[in-house]
Amino acid sequence: MELYKQQKIKVYNSLTNSKEDFIPLNEGYVGMYVCGPTVYSNVHLGNVRTFLSFDLIFRYLKHLGYKVRYVRNITDAGHLENDADEGEDRISKKARLEELEPMEVVQQYTVDFHKVLDEFNLLPPSIEPTATGHIIEQINIIKEILNKGLAYEINGSVYFDVLKYNEKEHYGILSGRNIEDAIHNTRELDGQSEKRNPQDFALWKKAQPEHIMRWPSPWSDGFPGWHLECTAMSTKYLGEQFDIHGGGMDLKFPHHECEIAQAKSCYEVSPVKYWLHGNMLILNGRKMAKSTGNYILPLEIISGNNTILSKPFPATVARFFMLQAHYRSVLDFSSDALEGAEKGYYRLMSAVGSLQNINAGSQSSFDVTVWRQSCYDAMNDDFNSPVLIAQLFEGVKYVNQLLENKASLTEEDLAIFKETFNAFVFDVLGLVDVTSKDNSDKLGKVVEMLIDMRNEARANKNWALSDKIRDKLAAVGVQLKDGKEGTTFSVN
Amino acid sequence: MELYKQQKIKVYNSLTNSKEDFIPLNEGYVGMYVCGPTVYSNVHLGNVRTFLSFDLIFRYLKHLGYKVRYVRNITDAGHLENDADEGEDRISKKARLEELEPMEVVQQYTVDFHKVLDEFNLLPPSIEPTATGHIIEQINIIKEILNKGLAYEINGSVYFDVLKYNEKEHYGILSGRNIEDAIHNTRELDGQSEKRNPQDFALWKKAQPEHIMRWPSPWSDGFPGWHLECTAMSTKYLGEQFDIHGGGMDLKFPHHECEIAQAKSCYEVSPVKYWLHGNMLILNGRKMAKSTGNYILPLEIISGNNTILSKPFPATVARFFMLQAHYRSVLDFSSDALEGAEKGYYRLMSAVGSLQNINAGSQSSFDVTVWRQSCYDAMNDDFNSPVLIAQLFEGVKYVNQLLENKASLTEEDLAIFKETFNAFVFDVLGLVDVTSKDNSDKLGKVVEMLIDMRNEARANKNWALSDKIRDKLAAVGVQLKDGKEGTTFSVN
Repeated sequence: MELYKQQKIKVYNSLTNSKEDFIPLNEGYVGMYVCGPTVYSNVHLGNVRTFLSFDLIFRYLKHLGYKVRYVRNITDAGHLENDADEGEDRISKKARLEELEPMEVVQQYTVDFHKVLDEFNLLPPSIEPTATGHIIEQINIIKEILNKGLAYEINGSVYFDVLKYNEKEHYGILSGRNIEDAIHNTRELDGQSEKRNPQDFALWKKAQPEHIMRWPSPWSDGFPGWHLECTAMSTKYLGEQFDIHGGGMDLKFPHHECEIAQAKSCYEVSPVKYWLHGNMLILNGRKMAKSTGNYILPLEIISGNNTILSKPFPATVARFFMLQAHYRSVLDFSSDALEGAEKGYYRLMSAVGSLQNINAGSQSSFDVTVWRQSCYDAMNDDFNSPVLIAQLFEGVKYVNQLLENKASLTEEDLAIFKETFNAFVFDVLGLVDVTSKDNSDKLGKVVEMLIDMRNEARANKNWALSDKIRDKLAAVGVQLKDGKEGTTFSVN
Repeated sequence: MELYKQQKIKVYNSLTNSKEDFIPLNEGYVGMYVCGPTVYSNVHLGNVRTFLSFDLIFRYLKHLGYKVRYVRNITDAGHLENDADEGEDRISKKARLEELEPMEVVQQYTVDFHKVLDEFNLLPPSIEPTATGHIIEQINIIKEILNKGLAYEINGSVYFDVLKYNEKEHYGILSGRNIEDAIHNTRELDGQSEKRNPQDFALWKKAQPEHIMRWPSPWSDGFPGWHLECTAMSTKYLGEQFDIHGGGMDLKFPHHECEIAQAKSCYEVSPVKYWLHGNMLILNGRKMAKSTGNYILPLEIISGNNTILSKPFPATVARFFMLQAHYRSVLDFSSDALEGAEKGYYRLMSAVGSLQNINAGSQSSFDVTVWRQSCYDAMNDDFNSPVLIAQLFEGVKYVNQLLENKASLTEEDLAIFKETFNAFVFDVLGLVDVTSKDNSDKLGKVVEMLIDMRNEARANKNWALSDKIRDKLAAVGVQLKDGKEGTTFSVN
């Protein structure tokens, strides 16, 4: 029997502001859409946290045996412009290769994005569609919304008519706003003045002459409004209604609100059953911002190349750190907090390693199924990873008792214990055991030990041994160098 | 001054079957398009060799200071069908999530493809566009070819009229064929009977009801013909004319021939200045084929999980092996050949390592600029990597002479020597030095050395030292185990 039939999840639904039983639209299947990155700059650590939260959810749903189709888009439609000073004539005469090509920018940051998520051990989504790859689908949605009378065309652009929509539906249902609030908060593209009402949003924008990315449409050569791509891609791959839509808290309004309005207008159904929003990551208690220097790039954690950090950290330690907070809580990132997480991580990995060497006893002195269920209960409660980690540390206590022969487990129970421990640590939390691969560190320690032995030999005037150690190390590519401050070594 | 102003390349152009001076259309810029993978199965080793050949060319052009825009597409439009037995009604009632979604297949193999190329240290191209992301562009080209009277619509499909085109142009200009040959060789989609002539090829195909991937068009809900995507994407990102078009030899006809016909019909210019084709990779003297078991996947080289191999090999050794053949030669892959390449690779890396420790002398006993130019000459001669490698081994001889003080170089010449050596080994050939990272191996050797010392101590009944070695190793995670056949160790 699939695990999902035994383990019942509750999720916090932003649409109802309450925890609800998670019941997918099609039994055994889950459709999940998460707003992906805009690939015109480096992915920032806050994004990584958001994607990590949904990676945890993706992993847990798969662990429970659901067939999950996880769609995370790439926003590659950018509004780069050719240098306007040069004038249109000059531009059109320029060789294609000399022009700025937005897709080169897109490629650079997409490659970077994938590298970062790979380092943090996020699984690739099932489908990773691009906005520019779905222009036809977006145009079709605009046509349909125009047909329904909920959008209007003006000067080659098409706008969604929020007031008209709000007559029958509630624009603000997700964010708890009303139209009056919306008036003051609508995210604008340009050309605001041609809109009927300030809160209307663009479905299609006519391109200015200097706009590089543009496609033909019934209204103009132009480009789709930003909110539209997610409606087009989620519907195409998950259907008009699907189970989970995720994203950062900052996308709730207006982006997700507009998605609901677009989909309801077009398909006349509420598109998403459960809206999930991840919370912010702050740095040293303050908002991250490039301008203030209170800022860190994900890969700088691994390289240590940021003055904020005391030292480099393995990506999996940063992953563990982020999972120590619930996805709906604000998380404060700092070097001290990472160091704390590192200690916990190594304690956990040490237990995982020791667990493999434990032998079964004739009876069980604790109830593994109770402990096992406590792990599931944590994740079933809105994917509460910090509670799960606390339960795993309960497990670490058991491991230590088993090692010290203060506890025992029957063969059957021991198998359950090992399987559960490994499943939650590696499959669900997605941690990677870097301790066993850390041989460069071990090599260093063994060489240091040999340097000590050599120092002893030299103190005893045992030059034969001292030279032998130096020469044998040199033969395997480890060079000792005697200096004023003692002996150092380098590895070729 | 940019290097490309000094170093003049000759390339073998498949269009003229001769070596020609390489003169880009826009000085200092190179536009290069290479046909990428079809992501409906694992990339095979022959594909990797082809992409590696163009990676070498990309790297060399960049090394010379060209601004290269390298476009390599992803063929993600596939003709998967829903299970026809179930009937149309059943299918339309099925939930979206339960249906086969081609884009899930695409994602799986795209991720695999990127992983493979990354392992073999291929640089990502500048732009990696997808066929499904350029349907509008493809439809526009079809409209234009219809306008020119060189295609016809029938039953919702559009075909290119090869005979009509051949009245004024030469269909077969690249492959050296004539229409009579073509009649017997045209690659067919389905619905052959509706074509006016068998050698006509599809520009747009009407989708059958069971076809999953489909887009609206002026002719039908359908999908573009396979040859069209490369014309659309190369033109969009490189212009109507560009410098280099590459691909495997097997794509010359009909794929590249059709690209020429499409582009000439649409834009009335020959699209590509230099056509470059990579040759085949065979395995143990025979064609690779899954059916015969004479087959190896790229990542199996690294894992060693293939009976064809004597052992696992680092990916960079396989890269070095493939670069030992010229891209236009057939290459026979075998475990023995890889072992041979491995020896050469380590000899080269050893020289690279030693070179760093060489000191300058008061005079130069050989002419580094002559040697340096011989490296450039090799690459300038149609990117002849095996000749380059031979020149680098000449360099290895010099390194050894320098090490043995049988030769010397002035500071300036030594700097040129080091810079050239490193540039060709790492930047141009794209090799990776795995020797210095091989610490697990070094750790093993150092531990073996300690085991020897411990054995000596035990032979001398120096139990204190013997125990100290064991305990100190245990403290850093290296366990010694004394058995009948001596002492072994394990690393935690």
